[in-house]
Parts: sequence; C-alpha cells; structure tokens
Amino acid sequence: MNGLSFKISAWDRNARTGLLSTRHGDIQTPAFMPVGTAGAVKAMMPDAVATTGADIVLGNTYHLMLRPGAERVAKLGGLHNFMNWHKPILTDSGGFQVMSLAQLRKMNEKGVTFQSHLDGTKYELTPERSIEIQYLLDSNITMVLDECPRHGRPKSEIAHSMELTHRWAGRSRDAFQERSGYGIFGIVQGNIFEDLREESARGLTGIGFDGYAIGGLAVGEPQNEMFMTLDFTVPHLPHGQPRYLMGVGTPADIVGAVERGIDMFDCVMPTRSGRTGKAFTRRGELNIRNARHAEDPRPLDDHCTCPACRDFSRAYLHHLFKANEILGPVLLTWHNLTYYQDLMMGLRKSINEGTLTIFTERFHNDKSEGDIAPL
Amino acid sequence: MNGLSFKISAWDRNARTGLLSTRHGDIQTPAFMPVGTAGAVKAMMPDAVATTGADIVLGNTYHLMLRPGAERVAKLGGLHNFMNWHKPILTDSGGFQVMSLAQLRKMNEKGVTFQSHLDGTKYELTPERSIEIQYLLDSNITMVLDECPRHGRPKSEIAHSMELTHRWAGRSRDAFQERSGYGIFGIVQGNIFEDLREESARGLTGIGFDGYAIGGLAVGEPQNEMFMTLDFTVPHLPHGQPRYLMGVGTPADIVGAVERGIDMFDCVMPTRSGRTGKAFTRRGELNIRNARHAEDPRPLDDHCTCPACRDFSRAYLHHLFKANEILGPVLLTWHNLTYYQDLMMGLRKSINEGTLTIFTERFHNDKSEGDIAPL
Repeated sequence: MNGLSFKISAWDRNARTGLLSTRHGDIQTPAFMPVGTAGAVKAMMPDAVATTGADIVLGNTYHLMLRPGAERVAKLGGLHNFMNWHKPILTDSGGFQVMSLAQLRKMNEKGVTFQSHLDGTKYELTPERSIEIQYLLDSNITMVLDECPRHGRPKSEIAHSMELTHRWAGRSRDAFQERSGYGIFGIVQGNIFEDLREESARGLTGIGFDGYAIGGLAVGEPQNEMFMTLDFTVPHLPHGQPRYLMGVGTPADIVGAVERGIDMFDCVMPTRSGRTGKAFTRRGELNIRNARHAEDPRPLDDHCTCPACRDFSRAYLHHLFKANEILGPVLLTWHNLTYYQDLMMGLRKSINEGTLTIFTERFHNDKSEGDIAPL
Repeated sequence: MNGLSFKISAWDRNARTGLLSTRHGDIQTPAFMPVGTAGAVKAMMPDAVATTGADIVLGNTYHLMLRPGAERVAKLGGLHNFMNWHKPILTDSGGFQVMSLAQLRKMNEKGVTFQSHLDGTKYELTPERSIEIQYLLDSNITMVLDECPRHGRPKSEIAHSMELTHRWAGRSRDAFQERSGYGIFGIVQGNIFEDLREESARGLTGIGFDGYAIGGLAVGEPQNEMFMTLDFTVPHLPHGQPRYLMGVGTPADIVGAVERGIDMFDCVMPTRSGRTGKAFTRRGELNIRNARHAEDPRPLDDHCTCPACRDFSRAYLHHLFKANEILGPVLLTWHNLTYYQDLMMGLRKSINEGTLTIFTERFHNDKSEGDIAPL
C-alpha cells in the first residue's frame, strides 16, 4: 500500500475521532502536534514529549534546510534518528517561514529565492526542492509548498495567490515519491472568502492528496472569522481523509475547530508560552511570574499529572522564573504540552462516547471560573 | 545520636572510601556534590541529578537568602521539599559569595553587611545568621561562616583572616542546633602556608566539628600548590571524620585530592561547562561547538551511559548548541555530571579493591591520548 491509512472511529455531529497510520506509528486524531522547529521540541527531551501523550511532532523545513541542512540530516539517518524521536513527523513546506523570517525574498512562478536570516546565505525554494528536503528529512507527512498572503489583503490578491498555490500543489504532488507509510497533504487557501475556499478545495481534491490542510488562518483574524471559514470550507473536503488546521491555536480555538471536523493541529503556543512563564490550566491561563504565586504551595493545576504539577509548587516555579533557571522553561513547557495533550485526549474520549457537547460546556465553564482563589 | 555518622570502609594509601549518613540518606565517599546554587542544579530535573549517581547536592546560602529568602523556603517545607530533592543537602555559609558577588561589603568582628547584587537590598550576615539561614533551609551539612582572602595576599593578612575565621567558627558552632542526622563542618584556612594550615587545623579540631573543609584553595593557585597544601594539611585533620575540599575542581584535581585523603568535593565546572558546550570525556575535554563535530555520528564518550551519549550523536549536540536550543545545555550538563559521578564511582571501586594506582594511571593515560580520531 502507498500513502497513509486513515480510519475514522466515531462521529459526534461534525467532530470525529480516527487513527492515522504512518511508517513510524499511529496518530490518534484529533491530534495536537508539538512544534520541533529546529530538530527539537524546545526545552524538551524527546522521551518527555512522548510522555505528554504526543503521537507526532512537526519539524520546520525552513529552519532545518538552513541549519543543519537537509542533506546533513539525511546523512545522519534522517530526522527521526537525528533528534531521537521515533514516532511520526510532519514537516511544513518552508513557505510560511520564508515569508515571515527570510530576507530579500523574490518570488516568481518557479519558486522563491531568499537570504537566510541566520547568515545571509542565498537559497532557492521551489515546490520540487521543498518536497526533496522533506524526503531527505524522512518526513512521514509532507506538505506542499504554498503561498500564504497576509490577512487583510484584497480578494484579487488572495485569488491570485491561491491559483499559484494550486499550480505549486500540482508540481509538489508530482515531485513526491509514493511510499508505504508516507503521505503528502495539500493546503487549501482562500482566506475568509467562501467562494475562494470552495474553489481551492475543489482544485486540491482534484489533484488528490492523503490529507488536506487549511492554511491562511491563525494569521490575525478574529476567532469567529476562523470558525466561519471552517464552517464553509470543511464540507468541501473529503469525509474520509484527515483535515489539518495549520498553526492553530489556543485551547478554545482547538475545541471549536474539533467541533467543526478538524483532525490535526500544530502551534508554538504551549512551548513558546512555557518559556516565558505563561501556563495553561483547566481554569484558564496564568503567568507564574506574578507575585501572587511567590508563596503558593499549590500546583499549577491540581488535575494535571505532569512533573511540574506532581513534584513542584507554584512558589517554586515562580522562583525558577525569577532566578532565570533553565528548569523553569523546561517545567512550564512540559506542563503546557501535557495540558494540550490532555485536552486532545478529553476531546477524543467525549467524541467516542458521543458526549462532546457536555465536554465543551464544561471546558468553557471551567475557564470562566478563573484561576483558583488566592491563599 | 546527634550529628552525622561517618564510617570508613577501606583505605588505599592515603585515600579512603566511606559512608556518611544523614537524616536524608547516605553519601558514599569520595563524593562529588553538584552545585544547586539557587534551589536547582542548573538545567537538570532533580530526578535526573539522582540518576547520574549524585548522593548529595550543594545549595548556596547567599543566593537563597536573597531569593526566595530562607524564611520563605522554611515556610514551604525546607529546601528538600521546595526543590523536590529528598537526598542530602550541604549548604555553604554564604561568606564566599558575599566576597565575590555582593556590593558595598563592610566587614567587622561581628560579621559582614552588604548589598544584594540583585536589587541593592541591604543584608547582614553574621556567623549566627548564617547558621540560622542554613537551619531554615533544613541543610543536612551546615558550614561555618569563614573569611576566605584572595590568593596572593601577604601572609600577615592571611593569618589575620584565619584568626577571625576561628572566632567565627566558635560562634557558628555555638549557634548550631544539634540534631540527629544533621552536622556542621569547620573550614581550615591558611592559604598555602604550612604553619598557618596546621594552626588552623588545630584551632578547628579544638572546637570540634562533624567534618572539616579545606577552604581557600581553587582560587587561582597552580595545581601543584593545591596538592602541596593538601599534603601538609590533611595529616592534621582527624582520621575518622570527613574531609571536604571546597570548590574543587577539574577531574585531575579531584583524582589528586582523593589520593591525598579528601572525601568530598563540589564545583560548578561540570554544570557551567555543560551550559557553554564544553564536555568532559574519558579522553579529555572537547567543545561541542567545534565544526569538526558537525557531521560526527558518534557519541560524546562511548563509555558513557547518560542520555546525551546513549541517544544522540555529536552532530546533533553540535546542532543544538549552534541553534541555541535549551536541550543542548540540558544534555551536556547531564553528560558532565554523569562523567563526574562515574569518575567518583571508579575512584571508590579502585580504593575498595586496593587498585587506586592502576586507576589513576589509566585515568591519566586515557586523557593523554586526546579525543577520538577525526572521521
């Protein structure tokens, strides 16, 4: 068999659970993918990432092509061996980071040339080269190279960009080498325009992919626009294949998107927030640097089983951040990733049991109560 | 029983192995104590510190009194609970850091006043207050407050400082509350002067402590002066009590000091070096940032069982440091602490077997071979 196998287990209204199988193991969906930008989920040992419940991590093609380089990773046995993560890996195409990080970009029909933000070295990224890099990394899920215009651009520009994305998607599909347990996803663009999203979904399903991502969201638009876009885009995607909402998002974004039929997510939020002292809990978000935690012997979240909550007080975590100890970011990242994976597990369980509405109500109620009372 | 129990197991010439028992468990000697300056061994989870083989960690009174404060740590259940390290803890007196870090120090017979290097707050540290802080931290091994003059000062100044240290040692001893499983160590001063070291050892053994530290070394003097000082100081210390060489040192320093009868060590070297990319191996030291490691699939040290050596290549560790990933310092710290603990284990084993000479010869030979051959 070529490609990836995706089996849907249960539906609850538009939400569903499933099992996506790859050469490196299975992914329970809905799934959250921690971001391992440069070959590491920041501040985490790979076995710790696995203990949070993650089935898959995301690697960034842009970062890895600049350093250490795709050919070097291949020489060292591929990204799984390089970073000692032997479960599935999805890589993005590099396109998004070229647009947001690289210097002196020049784009034309062929692809994009740019200078590295690290040392100014010139690179060219074409659909074919992006697919080759992801092949060299040994990525289980390859993403097509797309162009994602900024939020708020005129519709004509969005449409123009979408058409380029479709031509690049075809070239990406052609360049992709079919193998058992490896797959390639297309990316639906069209911003918040219903007709463009429908056109994009038709264009990509016409080419045919192992799964479909929804790109161009989580780029500054309000949550209701994102949900509205999902409402009119998802019906145009094949029922039986995985749907991936790129770069999303807050816990509430994820809950709303799962309700609308999304299967996969990635976001730097739990890891990046963890490094700056922001913790996600069942009762909302808190900043551990806040003085009110300085003598608080209680855990961050008394329903959480992560090491930060099991072994340490808020007072200690507060101290670690005040003292700039590396252990602070390590523990808060671990906690936040555990929180996100616990959320996904709760969503999957309630979908399997047909109780998603009850789950999401409790989720919003717990949050609205706010953090635990002061001591 | 009050104090600490110390049982010597075996001798090999002047070196010996022993077991030092505290309220929080036993310490196999010769022992290396990782430094947990501000309530954390930097970049390490406490359970990871234990897996390296460490029986005890050191906490810094100066750092902890400033932040989070000794009274706060006591309120939160003591340092063991605060940092989730339930094995023994030794704390220094704060004196050394006051001299090296604090601002606007004023010293007199009573003690020392200074301003915090963090925020300028004024503090007073007397022998009595130092002992009280260490009590509040629940330290298993308390150190007397001493004055450690800089290396190279005139002998008259060293003598003057030593006499003050003796008076402070008496006051520290008086202030210390005897409890089972807790002890207090005196600190022998006198720099590299044989008569002063002898006088200091006599003065302190006259007061009577659970163990004796040798202070004022590892402050810039050459290794042969340090060893010479140990040669003429150790014979004046009680045979049956633990001897602690403060702030030492390199692997070769430790080997030479163990040969001279030292039982305990602490040093920031393995942790601080680990954070900057320097690794200790059986074949010497290396800097993982060096370009020659960029494609090297081999482990740092193929005799090491730490996660950095077990799961990752030099190429990956090199990449982590180039990419400023937190995981780099985490893994190299883990490796270096494992290397130090393996060294202590090797020393203990060879002393127990009466083969210390063979062990030290092999140690120096392995080092002289240099790092493994280039690929």
